Amino acid sequence: MNVVLFQSHEKRSDGTVVLSDRRAVHMDRVLRVQAGQWVKVGEVGGKLGRGRVVEHSPERTVLRPVLSESPPEPSRVGLVLALPRPKVLRRVLRAATCFGVKRIDLVNSWRVEKSYWQSPVLEAESVNQVLRESLEQAVDTILPEVRLHRFFMEFVGDELPDRTTGGPVFVAHPGASTELPVCLASPCTIILGPEGGFVTREIDRFVDAGAQPARLGERILPVEAAVSAVLGRALKARTVVVQ
Amino acid sequence: MNVVLFQSHEKRSDGTVVLSDRRAVHMDRVLRVQAGQWVKVGEVGGKLGRGRVVEHSPERTVLRPVLSESPPEPSRVGLVLALPRPKVLRRVLRAATCFGVKRIDLVNSWRVEKSYWQSPVLEAESVNQVLRESLEQAVDTILPEVRLHRFFMEFVGDELPDRTTGGPVFVAHPGASTELPVCLASPCTIILGPEGGFVTREIDRFVDAGAQPARLGERILPVEAAVSAVLGRALKARTVVVQ
Repeated sequence: MNVVLFQSHEKRSDGTVVLSDRRAVHMDRVLRVQAGQWVKVGEVGGKLGRGRVVEHSPERTVLRPVLSESPPEPSRVGLVLALPRPKVLRRVLRAATCFGVKRIDLVNSWRVEKSYWQSPVLEAESVNQVLRESLEQAVDTILPEVRLHRFFMEFVGDELPDRTTGGPVFVAHPGASTELPVCLASPCTIILGPEGGFVTREIDRFVDAGAQPARLGERILPVEAAVSAVLGRALKARTVVVQ
Repeated sequence: MNVVLFQSHEKRSDGTVVLSDRRAVHMDRVLRVQAGQWVKVGEVGGKLGRGRVVEHSPERTVLRPVLSESPPEPSRVGLVLALPRPKVLRRVLRAATCFGVKRIDLVNSWRVEKSYWQSPVLEAESVNQVLRESLEQAVDTILPEVRLHRFFMEFVGDELPDRTTGGPVFVAHPGASTELPVCLASPCTIILGPEGGFVTREIDRFVDAGAQPARLGERILPVEAAVSAVLGRALKARTVVVQ
């Protein structure tokens, strides 16, 4: 937890925020705060700043936040992911949020096991919890929008074409003849397949909808590694050596 | 398991390999092989190819390998990591191996908890198991060399200066004034800190030894995300947009 986040409805009329959950425990055990001290705080959906500890006990902290900084710039990458298995999904949501991704679409695919769609990890509360913890890690306040698309063709037919108007759409595919670009200066969407990859007719549908197939190296990467690799490539760089 | 790996000492005089461990179980339950079928195989430290299933039962498979392909090109990046906590270490070793990293140095640092050095995950057998499974995922045969450096100053004083003769050495540091390059055409070494980062005097020692501080985005990334981001940036790209 690199920032203590609170929600606007937690603010009391006197401007203070009372914490009595894991955040209070964290401040007690990890930060070892004392009354009078300042801690890094942020309002979910709002600004970052500092909060003065007005009162503190092991189970309860009262903070007076002073918010003045904008949250860090979001990533320019929107992610479309074939729904990974639940354990991997958590890690992928965490990584994407830490890199500042604000739009994550989870789609069905031939090689996505049907049971994944029943996972409790997909419940709104569970997703929200992962996203909140990730914002706390990344010192950000803006929750990503995570959307579920149970039907592949519906997503590709109805939603993806619109996406191409907001920047290029790439679908990671080992068979592609060009490599995925790095350091895109403009927004883009990157589609990553399930373990085992998309099947050929899925790649064809993505291409019909305006996506460009692109390779991400020569190797079969685990989904979480591929997500961070793609997002790492979109981070700024001053020196670039083209091969 | 995208390739079935065996070790040279497992080859019998008639050229076949007998598998009776998790690999046999995998071939039975996941690949559902039958006698006469071919599967993707590789020899640890050697070549890749195909293996003909000579005999198969649920607990035992006899393969006759025909090896002709070289393993994929290794990553040009050598990694130096402040020893992460054990759970993260597994994931980091896995990611690095999947990207083809062949040299991983785990070093001590001010913010590395002493107890991490006692973890059973660091035992040679445990590390080897993670690396083997990762090669099976990445369809590679060359094990990375993982070395432990219990003493920070010994590593930085005795080993790091030599490393700079083999290409640039970068130390990821949020306070750096330049960004980490992408798509290096030549070998390089990248040093990543612990949770909370290196302390200033550690950065100073790295710089004294010839390393260049470089930023990796604006955000605090979990170690495993930073590792994949760095390695993703070193994968080839045809299109590059500099910002």
